[in-house]
Amino acid sequence: MSYNTFGHVFRVTTWGESHGPALGATVDGCPPGIAITEEAIQHWLDKRKPGQSRHTTQRREADLVRILSGTFENRTTGTPIQLMIENTDQRSKDYGEIATTFRPGHADITYHQKYGLRDYRGGGRSSARETAARVAAGGLARAVLEALVPDLRIKGYMTRIGEHKIDRSRIDMAEIDRNPFWTPDAKSAQEWEGYLDEIRKSRDSVGAEIEVTATGVPQGLGAPVYAKLDTDLAAAMMSINAVKGVEIGEGMKAAQLRGTANADEIRMSSEGPVFSDNHSGGILGGISTGQPLLVRFAVKPTSSILTPRKTITETGEETEIVTKGRHDPCVGIRAVPVAEAMMACVLLDHFLLDRAQTGGQRGKIGSFSAE
Amino acid sequence: MSYNTFGHVFRVTTWGESHGPALGATVDGCPPGIAITEEAIQHWLDKRKPGQSRHTTQRREADLVRILSGTFENRTTGTPIQLMIENTDQRSKDYGEIATTFRPGHADITYHQKYGLRDYRGGGRSSARETAARVAAGGLARAVLEALVPDLRIKGYMTRIGEHKIDRSRIDMAEIDRNPFWTPDAKSAQEWEGYLDEIRKSRDSVGAEIEVTATGVPQGLGAPVYAKLDTDLAAAMMSINAVKGVEIGEGMKAAQLRGTANADEIRMSSEGPVFSDNHSGGILGGISTGQPLLVRFAVKPTSSILTPRKTITETGEETEIVTKGRHDPCVGIRAVPVAEAMMACVLLDHFLLDRAQTGGQRGKIGSFSAE
Amino acid sequence: MSYNTFGHVFRVTTWGESHGPALGATVDGCPPGIAITEEAIQHWLDKRKPGQSRHTTQRREADLVRILSGTFENRTTGTPIQLMIENTDQRSKDYGEIATTFRPGHADITYHQKYGLRDYRGGGRSSARETAARVAAGGLARAVLEALVPDLRIKGYMTRIGEHKIDRSRIDMAEIDRNPFWTPDAKSAQEWEGYLDEIRKSRDSVGAEIEVTATGVPQGLGAPVYAKLDTDLAAAMMSINAVKGVEIGEGMKAAQLRGTANADEIRMSSEGPVFSDNHSGGILGGISTGQPLLVRFAVKPTSSILTPRKTITETGEETEIVTKGRHDPCVGIRAVPVAEAMMACVLLDHFLLDRAQTGGQRGKIGSFSAE
Amino acid sequence: MSYNTFGHVFRVTTWGESHGPALGATVDGCPPGIAITEEAIQHWLDKRKPGQSRHTTQRREADLVRILSGTFENRTTGTPIQLMIENTDQRSKDYGEIATTFRPGHADITYHQKYGLRDYRGGGRSSARETAARVAAGGLARAVLEALVPDLRIKGYMTRIGEHKIDRSRIDMAEIDRNPFWTPDAKSAQEWEGYLDEIRKSRDSVGAEIEVTATGVPQGLGAPVYAKLDTDLAAAMMSINAVKGVEIGEGMKAAQLRGTANADEIRMSSEGPVFSDNHSGGILGGISTGQPLLVRFAVKPTSSILTPRKTITETGEETEIVTKGRHDPCVGIRAVPVAEAMMACVLLDHFLLDRAQTGGQRGKIGSFSAE
Repeated sequence: MSYNTFGHVFRVTTWGESHGPALGATVDGCPPGIAITEEAIQHWLDKRKPGQSRHTTQRREADLVRILSGTFENRTTGTPIQLMIENTDQRSKDYGEIATTFRPGHADITYHQKYGLRDYRGGGRSSARETAARVAAGGLARAVLEALVPDLRIKGYMTRIGEHKIDRSRIDMAEIDRNPFWTPDAKSAQEWEGYLDEIRKSRDSVGAEIEVTATGVPQGLGAPVYAKLDTDLAAAMMSINAVKGVEIGEGMKAAQLRGTANADEIRMSSEGPVFSDNHSGGILGGISTGQPLLVRFAVKPTSSILTPRKTITETGEETEIVTKGRHDPCVGIRAVPVAEAMMACVLLDHFLLDRAQTGGQRGKIGSFSAE
Repeated sequence: MSYNTFGHVFRVTTWGESHGPALGATVDGCPPGIAITEEAIQHWLDKRKPGQSRHTTQRREADLVRILSGTFENRTTGTPIQLMIENTDQRSKDYGEIATTFRPGHADITYHQKYGLRDYRGGGRSSARETAARVAAGGLARAVLEALVPDLRIKGYMTRIGEHKIDRSRIDMAEIDRNPFWTPDAKSAQEWEGYLDEIRKSRDSVGAEIEVTATGVPQGLGAPVYAKLDTDLAAAMMSINAVKGVEIGEGMKAAQLRGTANADEIRMSSEGPVFSDNHSGGILGGISTGQPLLVRFAVKPTSSILTPRKTITETGEETEIVTKGRHDPCVGIRAVPVAEAMMACVLLDHFLLDRAQTGGQRGKIGSFSAE
Repeated sequence: MSYNTFGHVFRVTTWGESHGPALGATVDGCPPGIAITEEAIQHWLDKRKPGQSRHTTQRREADLVRILSGTFENRTTGTPIQLMIENTDQRSKDYGEIATTFRPGHADITYHQKYGLRDYRGGGRSSARETAARVAAGGLARAVLEALVPDLRIKGYMTRIGEHKIDRSRIDMAEIDRNPFWTPDAKSAQEWEGYLDEIRKSRDSVGAEIEVTATGVPQGLGAPVYAKLDTDLAAAMMSINAVKGVEIGEGMKAAQLRGTANADEIRMSSEGPVFSDNHSGGILGGISTGQPLLVRFAVKPTSSILTPRKTITETGEETEIVTKGRHDPCVGIRAVPVAEAMMACVLLDHFLLDRAQTGGQRGKIGSFSAE
Repeated sequence: MSYNTFGHVFRVTTWGESHGPALGATVDGCPPGIAITEEAIQHWLDKRKPGQSRHTTQRREADLVRILSGTFENRTTGTPIQLMIENTDQRSKDYGEIATTFRPGHADITYHQKYGLRDYRGGGRSSARETAARVAAGGLARAVLEALVPDLRIKGYMTRIGEHKIDRSRIDMAEIDRNPFWTPDAKSAQEWEGYLDEIRKSRDSVGAEIEVTATGVPQGLGAPVYAKLDTDLAAAMMSINAVKGVEIGEGMKAAQLRGTANADEIRMSSEGPVFSDNHSGGILGGISTGQPLLVRFAVKPTSSILTPRKTITETGEETEIVTKGRHDPCVGIRAVPVAEAMMACVLLDHFLLDRAQTGGQRGKIGSFSAE
């Protein structure tokens, strides 16, 4: 019944609008005694920060996070942690026109219909700016995971932009942080530079596909049948602005497979059970197998474009709108760090959830148990 | 923090295992005064019931639902409604082998690792039999929706089985109930008969793609930013056994589109705002637009197949397994009524959720308001 | 947002009406691997069962509990546990009159006003019969606690019936199970026999005061500031039918004390910190100290009495009502096992909740830590 | 599973410590379109503000609230509302001693044991300063109630301080706002001035008893059987610092009554059903009757006193402590506005909760229905 809260035990409530005084995340249920600083969280916010390349919005936000509660002498105390980011570069004048006209593809019309009023400045609560709060919470989640599940690694990257998908034979995870698209395919990254310039010049925008992986995931995270790990990951990704599809492992392609091809057969190694493949994306029956998690999702093209679109006003008059302002031609790019943050929150939440019910103990297979 | 509960206000907790004495759904938060009978719910259970064609498991379950609480003289009273289905045809002998051996692609290994023990009979809690409880709860949700949102119509259908997808030019919604695949493409239905026979003969199984639509959806359902309608629909579908991907509207294909193509432009008609297209699948900013909802999901091929697969035992020995028993060659078929049920539960839940916050009032556009 | 669910992690949803086919408890979040049988739960139900002395209702219910799910070979599996009790001795004819007339002091009028209809047979959902489901869930909780917190002991007892309170100098905990009032004061028990006979003969009823204690409570259960242990205990007791007041430690008397008198001073013993007294009832800042928990609550006199009371009918006509049927002259007596069950559920829930957040680790004092 | 969240639909998460940079309340689920300003909320904060008479702490906090999100042009938008209060007068030097020594009667020892560390400055999260956030949220709740339930009036007042209780024959509600004790008995107020001075001079503190009433409460708020209105009110009051007992209507005294005396008989008036008395405190079966609500609770004496108390340090050494700093000799005084705020939050929450399930419709009695 929480409209703006995510998570079961590690509960993140984001708040704030694009052009209000501030936005942030109220995090309840954080384990105590975890080392945390504003700098550690800032690291992740800087990754998401707008204006870092010419391919993202030129809005200049410092996005400085402040920890207002829940820590003492740089350790979490077990009480709620308030992460606040003040809005500084708001330029509300850019947004005057949309006060009364609904931008197609945006939440303008649905917010108006549902609530009867809306903070139209920059999309208000529906702005992708809300995701800064997610990234802050994700930064905190990562710090906790580092202490409790030190082997865990989370990595997101782009695999497609519009018509262009990466060549999976060229994947080099080390490339991800070297290009503005967070893609593991260096050649694609080069090509996409020009492609995206062209999109922008044609006053258009384009969609994207992103993958998020996690390795070092403990076995046993997730639970039947509505707190499944894949269920919560799907919800987490779908809750990000502009996401229209979510896949685990084989994803939609699973519909095309046969059972003989899809089964990840199981063998025994000197380090415990191993799987012949990972069609499952690391999840069986909603519970992690210990294999790498693989989540994929699609982000629709930015709805704010400089090409005129037909629409109506609040008084019901037909008109055209050109969405000025400083918009990402491919909002999917900045979804990468957001998705990583959501993955971190979900995994920590399920780690704690599992600890509640099972105490973190694991059933044995041969001489191996996960913990 | 509810492992087995779905929904915010209309809360469904399913319980029960494949081979226990019974399974069911405990439904809390149902509005009072709604006409309901066991027969009305049975109608939907019969649709899902196994053994109806040669393409689904030959297990013979009457799947008779009993209402144990929460109604009086065939009306809901506002108190919890217990829907119980007794298991009758359990034949546990079929499942002896899997007591100690993990079936690849199943939850056997993850349940064992997480809980240290499991009810292995028929997959226990991870069995698709759990979905009977969902269908029962969905039947109840439909009855409530019929009273509160009489124009709402929910319909699910298959659009792909393995390599074969339907021809969308042949779609005829009236065909759906006339073939064992619940597909709107009669020609495909015919072809799939032979195709699925071949799959079964080759001791294999196959995946499927399903769409669920809803028309007559009120505007304003859903809420920013974690109780979005699409978020909850994605979670609902992903929680169904064997589902690996979920899409809203354009879904994964949105990654390939440009903004000019993807925008659903808005016009004004004599009946209120209308959209030029429905790329959004009826949801903007997580809130329903009033257009038809469109959700699509992929079901992986049944993991229980008669072809031997390599696996291990609980004691860590490598072995092979052939999953005997009575399994659906395409478990996706029976996912159709399950998905409809989940859609009904989600829509009712969000209808009530919206009523809590807004009282069901709607912002006006011109002279139109949704309510 | 759960109307009929209690608990955060160990979640108990009770369902069922006094005169429906059955009632029960759906328990989600139970730890796996715990030994449990129907007999173990029945033990506690038998304690609450009506008709055991002449001082409780003469309704004859076997109150046999069945475990329908969530266990396998007498161990919990981590999946939802359905505890069902069938209603057998329903005698609906007794209740004809109350179909249209509201009994003063009962939920008849409020259920009617809220829901527009009600299952009037025996009070329907508002009947104290609902507490049988709580006792069943409490029996399960006790079995889990026995495994996870073996030193914990929970004990409830009556300290007052109407004008008569016990003499605390005569308290002997061994007496509790030897008299029909579950009181630790044998002399009071004797006197109360005659007193309650007199009450019944005068066609009246009477209130009661009950205490529940727990010893061997781990330190660190509870959490600031709305999941405090005392908050949840107060909610648990207040949710029991007819309860009008709840106290922790000094309770209402704390209003009369001075700080010098109320402080439980702390010393150090060879076994860790000890307190000079227990005014706090074992809870400071919402978190258990490790001292005995002490909860006290008051149950109002049974509203169903044989003396005529003025009331109105559903059509608004004034009338008088005499509540026939088989009612406890002091419903407080049977509240004792119910309160013990609620205490067990709350303590288990907070044990799991604490395990989620802290992993059960404890801060040290000198060389002592609680765990 | 929310440690620091209160409410089902109107969800208030308070955050912040006594001596951190700020504290506040994150409010989710607020209805849209409600007129609200910082001034309107400040009004209630000023009532609770420390240092208003010589009987409360001399800490000087401006307690200025800022609305950081969720409103637009002074109306709520339906998105989360962040209410922040910056801490200004923190004087941490006062608190040095308690860094390593546990104050008896405080949460120092339990926080240390549970979390292994704590923000000891001013009690950190366990400080009564947290209640400022509740009062802010309560101010918002009142504004919403004013719009949705205009006849509702909430009023809290002191009925006892230590040995001195009010004379109920002298009650004059108009007196409440005229004395520093918020008591309706002017003569008591006068006497208490000297009494409390004496308490302070003797380096002691004292407890208090408070009542909160609500008139104009709609019928039908609350729900069986764990979301009862009295259950939630008991939890709300018990969650306030230092509260040790909660009563509804007759409260603990109900244990001493007979059924004939306790029944509130029902008659019919020209304005609907009326009750002969209000022993029930306005709640039957957990649901409001429409009569005035009556909640009473006891606050223990302030544990921080200037008289030395025996205690131990974190390293387990025995010592004595005198709690210096600026403490209220009777913390119960400032609990009055806090309890009013909690009552407002609970009533609004249940109003919305009821709207979700029943749509606010009411069963008729004769020609009357509540709505």
